[in-house]
Amino acid sequence: MTDRGILIVLSGPSGAGKGTICAALRQQMPNLVYSVSMTTRAPRVGEEEGVSYFFRDKEEFKRLIEEDAFLEYAQVYDNYYGTPKQHVMDLLSEGKSVILEIDIQGAMQVKERFSEAVFIYIVPPSLDILSNRLRDRGTDAAEVIDKRLSKASSELALAHRYDYIVVNDVLPDAVEKVASILRAEACKIKRNKEKIQYIYKQYAK
Amino acid sequence: MTDRGILIVLSGPSGAGKGTICAALRQQMPNLVYSVSMTTRAPRVGEEEGVSYFFRDKEEFKRLIEEDAFLEYAQVYDNYYGTPKQHVMDLLSEGKSVILEIDIQGAMQVKERFSEAVFIYIVPPSLDILSNRLRDRGTDAAEVIDKRLSKASSELALAHRYDYIVVNDVLPDAVEKVASILRAEACKIKRNKEKIQYIYKQYAK
Repeated sequence: MTDRGILIVLSGPSGAGKGTICAALRQQMPNLVYSVSMTTRAPRVGEEEGVSYFFRDKEEFKRLIEEDAFLEYAQVYDNYYGTPKQHVMDLLSEGKSVILEIDIQGAMQVKERFSEAVFIYIVPPSLDILSNRLRDRGTDAAEVIDKRLSKASSELALAHRYDYIVVNDVLPDAVEKVASILRAEACKIKRNKEKIQYIYKQYAK
Repeated sequence: MTDRGILIVLSGPSGAGKGTICAALRQQMPNLVYSVSMTTRAPRVGEEEGVSYFFRDKEEFKRLIEEDAFLEYAQVYDNYYGTPKQHVMDLLSEGKSVILEIDIQGAMQVKERFSEAVFIYIVPPSLDILSNRLRDRGTDAAEVIDKRLSKASSELALAHRYDYIVVNDVLPDAVEKVASILRAEACKIKRNKEKIQYIYKQYAK
């Protein structure tokens, strides 16, 4: 009576706090599986094949793109990054729920290829707060931050293509909301056909 | 930026534990409003108009049925019971979420009249457990229990018309699942159009 796992797409503008929410969820829901991405960039010290990333050369990556083997992929400067479809599908078939933490463009690609996924949009409560967060991170130059902010603004227009929106104002609240969404989705009738069938048979005895 | 409240229909066979779950939710989510039913039966000692029930005579109740003023209603022996539509709609407009604890037949009536409601099916883990619970309650005769059991079996076939199913195996787990569904539903994109619009305007500044 194992129903299929759920693919959860956690997405939102850079600085929304996706990564922090994911890290907190990892603690709270140890059964969630985090998808491993594929990349053409070289492994860094300490990175492990199949754990940090699946490392492949560009030729192989491009061949896989041709074969439609990715749920989503992107070229970032000189390298490719993507989510291998088969890897995720295998986990879902085993009844495991998989979480993907990706940007808006990636999420829109997943939407086209696997619309049954659950799409959660993480949004900072205001542009000012997003701006402060990006500055506080101290990893981006001022002009990069400006680009991210204007991108965040245009990307919010895509929120209607998602299933849920979680405003990341107070972190524990946002984490609790995402966890609630996962628990609720697991109760959806459409995800429990086998369980209902099982109970029904018991009842019909 | 107040979005509309959510109408939650908590339903399931007699003995599934709807009432117990509702009572626990009341503690956990004090902002939830419990719909007040209308009835033609006489008030019992201690019952208050507008709190326990709206008490009306049969003539008035029948007139309201004619006017399609109920989300659902039923005749039980010589009396009528129903959920007044306007009362619930007013609460929802104020942004309050309302919970209805009703039987399957009632839920199916609400589904026809207000399909935007969230329908949760509470189901006991097995017929044996349901049977034990009904016996332990000690309120029904053996033949009434048999009738309830066979009704529960046929009603499970209607589960596919619901949004969620919650197996009431361990009570605190079931309560947590229902609470999660409410929190998740509040994050649905379709219920946050105004909030998204508000954030969007901030961003567009």
